[in-house]
Amino acid sequence: MSRQTRPSTSRRAWLQQLGRAAGSGAVYAALTQLGLAQASPARADFGLGRAPKGARVLVLGAGLAGLVSAYELQRAGYQVQLLEYQARPGGRCWTLRGGDRYTELGGASQHCEFAPGEYFNPGPWRIPYHHHGVLGYCKRLGVALQPFIQVNHNAYVHGQQAFGGKPQRWRELQADFQGQVSELLAKVVQQHQLDETLSSEDQARLLEALRSHGALDAQGRYRAGEIAAERRGFGPQPGGGVSAAPPHDQPLGLHDVLASGLAGRLDLGSGFEYQMPLFQPVGGMDAIARALAKAVGPRIRYRARVTEIQQDERGVTAQYQDLARPGTPLSVSADWCICTLPLSVLSQVEMRISPALRAAIDAVSYFAAVKVGLQFGRRFWEEDEGIYGGISSTDLAIRTIGYPSHHFHARKGVLLGAYAFGANAYEFSALTPAERVREALRLGAQIHPQYPAEFEHGMAVAWHRHPATLGCFAWWTQAARERHYAQLLRMDGRLILAGEHASLLPAWQEGAVLSAQHAVTALHAKASA
Amino acid sequence: MSRQTRPSTSRRAWLQQLGRAAGSGAVYAALTQLGLAQASPARADFGLGRAPKGARVLVLGAGLAGLVSAYELQRAGYQVQLLEYQARPGGRCWTLRGGDRYTELGGASQHCEFAPGEYFNPGPWRIPYHHHGVLGYCKRLGVALQPFIQVNHNAYVHGQQAFGGKPQRWRELQADFQGQVSELLAKVVQQHQLDETLSSEDQARLLEALRSHGALDAQGRYRAGEIAAERRGFGPQPGGGVSAAPPHDQPLGLHDVLASGLAGRLDLGSGFEYQMPLFQPVGGMDAIARALAKAVGPRIRYRARVTEIQQDERGVTAQYQDLARPGTPLSVSADWCICTLPLSVLSQVEMRISPALRAAIDAVSYFAAVKVGLQFGRRFWEEDEGIYGGISSTDLAIRTIGYPSHHFHARKGVLLGAYAFGANAYEFSALTPAERVREALRLGAQIHPQYPAEFEHGMAVAWHRHPATLGCFAWWTQAARERHYAQLLRMDGRLILAGEHASLLPAWQEGAVLSAQHAVTALHAKASA
Repeated sequence: MSRQTRPSTSRRAWLQQLGRAAGSGAVYAALTQLGLAQASPARADFGLGRAPKGARVLVLGAGLAGLVSAYELQRAGYQVQLLEYQARPGGRCWTLRGGDRYTELGGASQHCEFAPGEYFNPGPWRIPYHHHGVLGYCKRLGVALQPFIQVNHNAYVHGQQAFGGKPQRWRELQADFQGQVSELLAKVVQQHQLDETLSSEDQARLLEALRSHGALDAQGRYRAGEIAAERRGFGPQPGGGVSAAPPHDQPLGLHDVLASGLAGRLDLGSGFEYQMPLFQPVGGMDAIARALAKAVGPRIRYRARVTEIQQDERGVTAQYQDLARPGTPLSVSADWCICTLPLSVLSQVEMRISPALRAAIDAVSYFAAVKVGLQFGRRFWEEDEGIYGGISSTDLAIRTIGYPSHHFHARKGVLLGAYAFGANAYEFSALTPAERVREALRLGAQIHPQYPAEFEHGMAVAWHRHPATLGCFAWWTQAARERHYAQLLRMDGRLILAGEHASLLPAWQEGAVLSAQHAVTALHAKASA
Repeated sequence: MSRQTRPSTSRRAWLQQLGRAAGSGAVYAALTQLGLAQASPARADFGLGRAPKGARVLVLGAGLAGLVSAYELQRAGYQVQLLEYQARPGGRCWTLRGGDRYTELGGASQHCEFAPGEYFNPGPWRIPYHHHGVLGYCKRLGVALQPFIQVNHNAYVHGQQAFGGKPQRWRELQADFQGQVSELLAKVVQQHQLDETLSSEDQARLLEALRSHGALDAQGRYRAGEIAAERRGFGPQPGGGVSAAPPHDQPLGLHDVLASGLAGRLDLGSGFEYQMPLFQPVGGMDAIARALAKAVGPRIRYRARVTEIQQDERGVTAQYQDLARPGTPLSVSADWCICTLPLSVLSQVEMRISPALRAAIDAVSYFAAVKVGLQFGRRFWEEDEGIYGGISSTDLAIRTIGYPSHHFHARKGVLLGAYAFGANAYEFSALTPAERVREALRLGAQIHPQYPAEFEHGMAVAWHRHPATLGCFAWWTQAARERHYAQLLRMDGRLILAGEHASLLPAWQEGAVLSAQHAVTALHAKASA
């Protein structure tokens, strides 16, 4: 119960998990000092100078950081060789479609049977408007973008103990919270309790602003009626009859809103990374990876498992296993190396690096997250409930239901049926993929009872079981950040790391992109010296 | 000055103009009574029964109301003839593209020279998620929809007297208003001024909710720092250097926010009709009209100017002028008639109708609005300012700058450069089209100084000068609504009116669609009797 009455804590905690406590405290300040911040829109004008004649660079990993590194190095004239463990580019920038097969650690294999045109992004699924690095490459490479709907006023906020477990429309809860809080403050002003704090002119302005902000009536009250209905919506709600319900529903009282524990979940679209507009590539997130891989060209060797990285004063050599032809390890050499393998993987690779960098690599654990994509044969969320895109939030272990921001009015659709993290993610990870899908269905049906009748197919990705990443993203503690982060960014001999783990925007593709730009800049400076 | 210090009044006034004072006070209540409200999502399942054998209906006007009427009547088996004044279907559901010519009253003619793929919707430009009538036809007819971005956290709020005329980012003003107000209320709670109003448990919950809502620190303060920056954004703003600015800008104080007069303009996306998500048809609003016209088929006669409508107990006859072949008026007869001409036009047409309906037609004046579309050769709003879609608001006569929600990262783009209404619209209407474009450029350059260098072509539509509508939308006073509205909806002999003017959602396409469904239902009932 205490969990439900303190929702803002968990929301804050999640925000913290996703960035702030992970080092974002100093994120932009440090980014600025490092020259990594781009608060002004990028004009896709990043670029290195000319490469030294014949200089060769080995790039390990073809996720976004590796692809951007290879792309920029090639543009500058470097000879680039890229090794990638998987059979496709993109890493976590990944889209599952019908026909795909995915085998996780432990051997459980899923065959994707989504209908043609349907897809699911198990990794990143949205791009904030100020992630100019990612947006810049989309622009330069012609990756078409469409808006991603984060806040949907008509989607649900759900708490198991709140309102008898009945999902609330975000719009109503938001209007009632804002209205009741505005009324409360308006009363304080009207009762002259702020006479010593605010001038009478500011008090009058505040009352007027609160009327607008809170949809208050002329007397400063938040009441059932047309003014409140301009915010919370009109008339009978879905499921009600056309003429049976009263024209204006009664708003929730302040106590009910507060006691529900749901008020803290109203800030779904308030954080800098979640504000309007957000974007998604048309057709799936991996459009970015595919465009970059196409630009990089044939210099990507897939299914190459790096086992060892050696270097001396003359160059770098990586040993790798060609997974298509098991046998003697192969090796490839170059003058320089950019290594973008996740720290979770690198900690298991033999490397000739400084003890300080080794300590940095070993200091970071990886955040757990599980996503489940569910295909339904009918878009009941649109047809029955008027929900087009956006997110419903819940305190069930699935945490999030995400509705597609594309193909509106199509027959079928794929929902994000679970976005579990932290403890919930470990519980989901312990299940088989089929069990994860069943659990997402069982829990989600508390919000959408249409689930059992309409379900067709599901895919479940537990990131700690992904063979190429062994986790979702680098989970920096503040202590690790202070002790190891600067080291992680430095050239170590002829090698430098890149990836979201080597950025102050962990979990975001922007972190990988900015980190790659940082790495190639540092490498180019040293190679040109 | 008083105008700037009372922004919420003007915002409220505009909301009222757009609906509430125009009759929306009782809008949904009355809609419900009339069976016109569809608070639950439509499953595109509207439909009449079978038409009486051989029954013929004349539909006047091929705007959305006329098209929906014709479409539904034909589906039921009626023989339909449709007369339209213009050379195209859609009426105000209209999109201007390169090659189009538009001649307004008075003879001023504009040739549209927008680049291929560029367009401008001079009439409606957005569809709320709960306008199930419009959405239902989009679904049924396969009109592809994409999200329309209403609120853009990175767009501007601009007041001539506020902050020295410097545009403010919506995000910063919103964060600072919400933060300062939350801090103010938190202080009141902390100082035990609400001990008699709220239980101690609710006070604790309220403090926690305010921390989340207002981005307050643990002590309940809204301060420069990472917590506030999670809302108002990080680091230097566009135009500043990468490392020159402090990492966290100082938030605005409460007095500055209130005295700016801009707080009332923060509710840009709060009203029921402006909440997320909104939609636009891919490629232009007229996609809806074209899809309906295609479904209706060849029974639309264009360039037919209706001059007289007669009826008796046997049928209805309309006289019309074929504008392509000036000469003797032609006539067409049917058993029934649905007349969707705007009241502004109908008041000049000779009609055999009851005095009560004539009085209703004459009782309504039309709202004035002017829209200007401006094509620029470079998307400086995206490239320089990171604004992708959405709206900047200003107290300049242009009132609104709308950024395209599509073709992100394209080279060129068309902005809504002015959406003037009321007194501003009359001023704009008095200018020639070329002067309107110049004025929109002159004023808009106060917000976007790139205007002069990047401008390519503009189109200006003053709705009071549009020959087919003579105004923007029906401007019902409450008195007229009470006295005449019911009469306007009734069958008058063999004739019934439809259109946004015959709805409780004036100005919205949804009003036209619901009104058409109401009209065909009433007609069918009478015809079947």
